[in-house]
Amino acid sequence: MKAEATLRQLGLEVPSLDELYRTNASGAHYISHFPVQNLLYLSGTTPRKDGHAYLPGVVGGDLTLEQGCEAARYAALTTLAAVQYALGGLDRVQPLVHMVGYVNSAPGFGDQPRVINGAADLFVSIFGDRGKPTRAAIGCQGLGGHASVEIIVTLLFTPGDVRPPLARDHYVR
Amino acid sequence: MKAEATLRQLGLEVPSLDELYRTNASGAHYISHFPVQNLLYLSGTTPRKDGHAYLPGVVGGDLTLEQGCEAARYAALTTLAAVQYALGGLDRVQPLVHMVGYVNSAPGFGDQPRVINGAADLFVSIFGDRGKPTRAAIGCQGLGGHASVEIIVTLLFTPGDVRPPLARDHYVR
Amino acid sequence: MKAEATLRQLGLEVPSLDELYRTNASGAHYISHFPVQNLLYLSGTTPRKDGHAYLPGVVGGDLTLEQGCEAARYAALTTLAAVQYALGGLDRVQPLVHMVGYVNSAPGFGDQPRVINGAADLFVSIFGDRGKPTRAAIGCQGLGGHASVEIIVTLLFTPGDVRPPLARDHYVR
Repeated sequence: MKAEATLRQLGLEVPSLDELYRTNASGAHYISHFPVQNLLYLSGTTPRKDGHAYLPGVVGGDLTLEQGCEAARYAALTTLAAVQYALGGLDRVQPLVHMVGYVNSAPGFGDQPRVINGAADLFVSIFGDRGKPTRAAIGCQGLGGHASVEIIVTLLFTPGDVRPPLARDHYVR
Repeated sequence: MKAEATLRQLGLEVPSLDELYRTNASGAHYISHFPVQNLLYLSGTTPRKDGHAYLPGVVGGDLTLEQGCEAARYAALTTLAAVQYALGGLDRVQPLVHMVGYVNSAPGFGDQPRVINGAADLFVSIFGDRGKPTRAAIGCQGLGGHASVEIIVTLLFTPGDVRPPLARDHYVR
Repeated sequence: MKAEATLRQLGLEVPSLDELYRTNASGAHYISHFPVQNLLYLSGTTPRKDGHAYLPGVVGGDLTLEQGCEAARYAALTTLAAVQYALGGLDRVQPLVHMVGYVNSAPGFGDQPRVINGAADLFVSIFGDRGKPTRAAIGCQGLGGHASVEIIVTLLFTPGDVRPPLARDHYVR
């Protein structure tokens, strides 16, 4: 359980996916994860802390680069919530394959890569070299619930059981 | 042909890909689909109705949330046109694996997930639980031909023949 | 070496990935490529020329459609730098599977597909029909270092050795 021990040392906690899916503030309809052979597809995740959206807003406007970076770190934690739920823990994580990070950006903001490092660096501190995916960091115009960052990760995992995904399909609109 | 029967009940028709590819308003050069083993990659699709671009514009500006949602529904139909062409029908569709939905968004608009539900809910009404992919909904700044929504879907299919893709590479620029 | 001969005929040169990764202007932390079976995932790439960022800015604002198209062509060359490094040359490239092209766009710009043709057409001139992927062209709000275009490509390759990826993880922030 090295990955989870590292998280605790960093003072971070992976949120509970069950808890997360009991609410559905954005109203989106989707599932948490889906395996194709031993490649795990994941839904995009946004920053959450203590059961609430964390650091919403536009980076380079409402939020500084440093706050965007912190938001990306928490978006990564939400991804880990889905991974932990799917694989029964983080120790079956093999290399992260790909990550696209979207940064809700003010016009003229050009530091999207440094924002997304908040997610990338957390993955490296937890998984070491396995935590470094191919990636892109893209400035976007708006995200669900005014989130500042959303990341989409695809990763390889050690073969074995994968828990059926949780679905977010309550019509809370 | 349950999927296609459902579509007819909803009063919807899958456009003909052949017809669609005879014109190329955006001038884009690409192919409609590509299989890797039994995973079907698809090009991004935008809303079309009666042979024309449907509901173009910026959501949260030119268009309301409801109109964006309707646009997403038709972007999903255009994706189905490519799937139907590729697989010879919709009944070989296995789980949808991933969908990224881009919403051409006005500054300050934060309801991208509800817009993309227009596509997600159509897929569920046609394919049931198989129609729920992992996903992300991203606000963007502009899309080809001022489309309001573009979706990119990746899905599994029952093994068998896949028709060679149609290419859009006429230089209409 | 047909692909590389074609590039020379076009007066283009694939940049050296080694050289490229010695600097890290955007400060991003990631790896250049990652193979899953014979599918090569690549990081997003931006336009470079003579060792520098090329044609930065906002298309439809700072830059014209034609300049955006030229930028996309050079973003494609940077992708080829990673492919060449990974596969030891361009001749093991099998079909390009998917490309998402992001265009840093001014409000109201709607010609993203024609911009991304700059990348698509280069791939076709080098690889022929194999160079036509499924794709999407998306307008975005900002890219790292104010790049005007970023492309993400996934492609199949002839099985064989793949060089370990280069990592960009120097803390130059």
